Amino acid sequence: MFQYLLFFTEPTMRRLATAVTLALASTTTTAANVILIVGDGMDDQQVTIARDYLKGANGQLLLDQMPVRSAVQILTVEDNTEGKPVYVADSANTATSLATGAVTSRGRIATSAGDDRDLPTIVELARAAGLRTGIVSSASVTDATPASFAAHISYRMCENPELMADITYSGIHLGHCQQDMKANGGAGSISEQLAVSGLDVLLGGGAKHFQPTVEGGTESVLRSAQLAGFSVVRSRDELLAAEPGERLLGLFAPGTLPVRMRGEDGREAEAPRPSLLNRLHQYLGSVELPEPMRCEPNPEAAGIPSLKEMTDTALQQLSHNNERGFFLMVESASIDKQSHERKPCGSIGELEQLDEVLASALDFAAQHPDTLVLVTADHSQAAQLIPQRSMFEAYTVPIYTPGKMARIITPEGSIMGVNYATNDFGYEEHTGANVPLYGNAAAEGRVKTFQRQSELFGIMREFLGL
Amino acid sequence: MFQYLLFFTEPTMRRLATAVTLALASTTTTAANVILIVGDGMDDQQVTIARDYLKGANGQLLLDQMPVRSAVQILTVEDNTEGKPVYVADSANTATSLATGAVTSRGRIATSAGDDRDLPTIVELARAAGLRTGIVSSASVTDATPASFAAHISYRMCENPELMADITYSGIHLGHCQQDMKANGGAGSISEQLAVSGLDVLLGGGAKHFQPTVEGGTESVLRSAQLAGFSVVRSRDELLAAEPGERLLGLFAPGTLPVRMRGEDGREAEAPRPSLLNRLHQYLGSVELPEPMRCEPNPEAAGIPSLKEMTDTALQQLSHNNERGFFLMVESASIDKQSHERKPCGSIGELEQLDEVLASALDFAAQHPDTLVLVTADHSQAAQLIPQRSMFEAYTVPIYTPGKMARIITPEGSIMGVNYATNDFGYEEHTGANVPLYGNAAAEGRVKTFQRQSELFGIMREFLGL
Ligand SMILES: [Zn+2]
Ligand SMILES: [Zn+2]
Repeated sequence: MFQYLLFFTEPTMRRLATAVTLALASTTTTAANVILIVGDGMDDQQVTIARDYLKGANGQLLLDQMPVRSAVQILTVEDNTEGKPVYVADSANTATSLATGAVTSRGRIATSAGDDRDLPTIVELARAAGLRTGIVSSASVTDATPASFAAHISYRMCENPELMADITYSGIHLGHCQQDMKANGGAGSISEQLAVSGLDVLLGGGAKHFQPTVEGGTESVLRSAQLAGFSVVRSRDELLAAEPGERLLGLFAPGTLPVRMRGEDGREAEAPRPSLLNRLHQYLGSVELPEPMRCEPNPEAAGIPSLKEMTDTALQQLSHNNERGFFLMVESASIDKQSHERKPCGSIGELEQLDEVLASALDFAAQHPDTLVLVTADHSQAAQLIPQRSMFEAYTVPIYTPGKMARIITPEGSIMGVNYATNDFGYEEHTGANVPLYGNAAAEGRVKTFQRQSELFGIMREFLGL
Repeated sequence: MFQYLLFFTEPTMRRLATAVTLALASTTTTAANVILIVGDGMDDQQVTIARDYLKGANGQLLLDQMPVRSAVQILTVEDNTEGKPVYVADSANTATSLATGAVTSRGRIATSAGDDRDLPTIVELARAAGLRTGIVSSASVTDATPASFAAHISYRMCENPELMADITYSGIHLGHCQQDMKANGGAGSISEQLAVSGLDVLLGGGAKHFQPTVEGGTESVLRSAQLAGFSVVRSRDELLAAEPGERLLGLFAPGTLPVRMRGEDGREAEAPRPSLLNRLHQYLGSVELPEPMRCEPNPEAAGIPSLKEMTDTALQQLSHNNERGFFLMVESASIDKQSHERKPCGSIGELEQLDEVLASALDFAAQHPDTLVLVTADHSQAAQLIPQRSMFEAYTVPIYTPGKMARIITPEGSIMGVNYATNDFGYEEHTGANVPLYGNAAAEGRVKTFQRQSELFGIMREFLGL
C-alpha cells in the first residue's frame, strides 16, 4: 500500500485525507440505529423461488450475501394465560413477538394471550428514550405487522373506528374489539392509535382506515393524525418531495399497495385439468397441466412508490439531524398476501422489493456504522417449488397436484413449478417451519445460529441501549 | 478455578494431569477427518416438525446448537452437456454434487450430464491419498446417496447385476444401464462396484442387491465383496462385535432399513372426508379431518441397529490405528422416504436418529479436534407443517387440504398438522427450496452463509488436504 502512495499526486493525497476524516467522523457518532426488515411469509421456499426467477439458479440475492445467517423458531400459544403451543402462527402474533419479546396468540396486536395486557413495544421504548421511530409497509399501515409495533388491541381486524363493535365478512361474524373502544376505557382502533402514536414516519397503504370519524369525536382519523403533528403525503411525488425533519404519514392506496409483478395477463396458479377418464381412476386418462407463463409488470402498480423509495425517505427523515438514533421497521407484506392468493409472480416481485430495501439499508449502514440491519420473516407460507412435470412421469400415468399450480418461464429459459395446496379455500394457510434471519456485520456475535423469534426483540433492544 | 484446585486431593490432581496429557496428545495428531451427515429431504419444514415433536416448540435439537449454520442452493441441470437449470433435484444428482463438486442431471450417480463421464468422488480422492473411507446409510447401501460417493453409473436404479439391461416396474419400462455393463466395457451395477470399491466401512440395508451373481462371473456380489477383503456382518450383534481394523460390509435388511417410528397402528396422512353436500359445493356441508394420532415405535425396527450404532462402529473402524484420517458419509435416508409415503411419524423418528448420529460425531470431534462435521440435506421435501384446523375456521365453511393430512398429538399435548399435497401419486414429489447446512467449530471460516451445494465438495476436499 505504501508503495502505491508514493506515486500519488498532491490533490489525490488531499482527497484521500478528506475521505479518511469523513469516515472517522461518521464512526464517532453515538447514535445507534436498528433497521428491521420483515418479509411477510418469506420462508426458504419463497426465497428460492425468487432467487431462481430473479437471479437464476446460480445467482445470488443480496440477502444471500449477508455475513450473518441464522434460523428462527416461530412461537405461538393458545389464547389463555397458560397457553399450550400452537404450531402455525399468523402475522399478528409473530409481529408481536418481534416488537415486544412476548409469545402470544394468533390475531393479537401487542397484547398478551388470555389476559389481554398491553405489551410495551420496541417503538415505544425507543421513543421514550428519545430515539426516532418509523414504520414502512407495503400493506395498510394498520395491518397486523406494522400495527404490532405501535398499537395494542386484542384483534387485528379492528383497523378503524368502524370495525370495533362487530366485524362481519360475507355475513359471518368474525370478532370484535369492544373492550378496546374508548367508551370502554380502551385506546380505540388501530388507525386511531397510530394517529397519536408519536411515530416519526409511517408510510404504506391503508388510507381507507383513516377516513372514518374518530370514536367520540368529530374529525376523521386522518385529521387527528395531522392535529397530532403528522404531515400527510398521498402520492409518490409528495413522498419524494418531503422536507427532511417532518413527521410523515404517507398513505398511497386505500388498502394494500398494488404489487410490482403479476402473472401473464393476471394469471395465478391454476388447477390441473384431468380428463374424464382420469376422474374415474387415477391411473387412466390424461391431465392438462397449466400452460407455462411469464411474469409481467403489474399495471396497477404504476405511480405507487416502491418499498425502496418509501424506505429511503424514511431513512432520510429518521437520520436528519438525529444525534440519538432510530428504530425503523420495513415490511414487504405481499410476499405473504400474494401467496395466500396463489400468485407466485406477485410474491417474487415483492421479494425483489425487499432485496432493494436491503440494499438501501446496507448503504445507510455503510455511512452510519452503528446500524444493525436484520432481515427475517414472520412465518412460513404455503408456496412450494415443485417439479414442473412430475418426477415420476416415466410411470406414464397422469400425475399432478391436487392443489393449484403455476408453471413459470424463468428468464434463464427453464420452467419452474410452484404449488399451493394447503387448503381449498379462497386463501391458503400459513405453514409452521422455522424461517431465515439475516444480519449485517453489526449482527455478528449478537445473533446465534438458532433462536426463538421473540429473542430478536432483546437483540434489538440491547443494540439500541434501551 | 485456582481456588477450587487448592482443595483437590493428590489423586485428583494426578487424574487431572493425565487427562490434560491425553487431550494434548490427541490434538497433536496430523490426521484430518471429515464426517458428512446427510439428512435426505431434511428441509426446514422437516426440522421444525421434528423439533416440535421431539423437543417441544421451545426446545432445541442438537442440530440447532451447532456453531455454524448456513443455507445451500441445490443445483440440477437437464441431461445434456449444456444443460439448462432444473429447479427440483433428486438424491442422485444432489449426492453427486456433494461427492464430486459437479452439477448433473437427475438419476445420475457420479456421472456427468449428457456425456456420461465418470466424476471422481471424494471417497476415491481420499482413498488415493491413503485416508480411510466409510459410508453408512439407513437406505440400501446401493441407493442413490451412498452410491454417488463410491460408484459411477448413468441411472440410479441399476442397483445390482439383474437391474442393468431393463428396469421395469408394474410393467412400465423405466430405464437401463446397458452402457455400464461389463460386457460393454463398463464397471457393472452399483452393488458390483461397491463390492470392489475399497471402502473400509459400508453399512446399511440392501442385502438383496448383493445376492445376484456378478455379471460374467459365477459368485454372488456378496462373495465378490468378501474376496475383495470385506468382512460381512448381517445383524446388530455381529455389528457390535466387529473387531477394530476389519474392513466391514454390514447389510441389515433386504432393502431400506425399517424406520424407528410410525403412526398409531401404522396410520399415515389421510385425505379429509367431506360430506356429500360439500362435494356439491365447497361452501356447503361439512368435512371430517383425520383423527388426531400419536406416534409409536415401529415394531419392524426391533433388532435393527440404529444409525448411531452403525456410525459408532464406523468411527471405531475408521479411526483405529489411523495416522492419516478418514472421510465418512452417514445418511439418514428415510426422512425422505417416509415423506414420499406420507408418514410424518416415520420422518420424525429418522430425524431423531440423525440428531443422535450428530451427538456421536461431535463426541468424536471433541476427542479428535481436526475433525470437520457437516450436516446438510440433499433437497427439500413435500411435508408441510400446516394448521391442524384451518386458520380461517371462523368463516364456518368446510376448509381442508386437497391433499393428505396427519394430525399428530405431540408429547407437549398440542396437535400438529402435517400436509402432503405435491401430487396424487403413490409417492410425493421433492421440492426445490434451499436447504440448511450445519457445521461444528472446525467449519468456522470455511463455510459461507450461503453457497451452492456443489461447493461443499471443495470445502471437504480442502479440509482433508486432497
Ligand atoms: Zn398471511
Ligand atoms: Zn426422495
